[in-house]
Amino acid sequence: MKYDAEVRISLKKGMLNPEAATIQRALALLEYQVENTSTVDLIRFQIQGDSEGAVKEEVDEMCQRLLCNPVIHDYTIKISAQEE
Amino acid sequence: MKYDAEVRISLKKGMLNPEAATIQRALALLEYQVENTSTVDLIRFQIQGDSEGAVKEEVDEMCQRLLCNPVIHDYTIKISAQEE
Repeated sequence: MKYDAEVRISLKKGMLNPEAATIQRALALLEYQVENTSTVDLIRFQIQGDSEGAVKEEVDEMCQRLLCNPVIHDYTIKISAQEE
Repeated sequence: MKYDAEVRISLKKGMLNPEAATIQRALALLEYQVENTSTVDLIRFQIQGDSEGAVKEEVDEMCQRLLCNPVIHDYTIKISAQEE
């Protein structure tokens, strides 16, 4: 069965986020006052699997091995079956 | 009143996504077969405003002027009032 997977990757609390800090400063230069800017990366793909649980386990392995750096990143995984 | 804003930025359909292509190839090297990989960037921040509509308009302006490239990006804006 085919599944849609979405991995949401964000920096752990307390980690410096230069990208977000740059965005906030640039917005301030354009006179937009915003606070607590943060960035989140989403990676989406489709994957074959026997069950939602098996797919979630496999995607978690992908996160551990490639997609995320468990030292600085938090990640969440969302799996949904594709309508045939 | 303070609002939470979330801007979701993705490449337009048909645009080449080198980041996603690289992720898909790297996953294949680790023997994970995935398809249709895509990436989405989320930018989140807090902003003062008079109403949800006024805030949405201001955030749309930020997207047009700084956060997105309207030629290659699609973007959606989600605004939610903060509980006091």
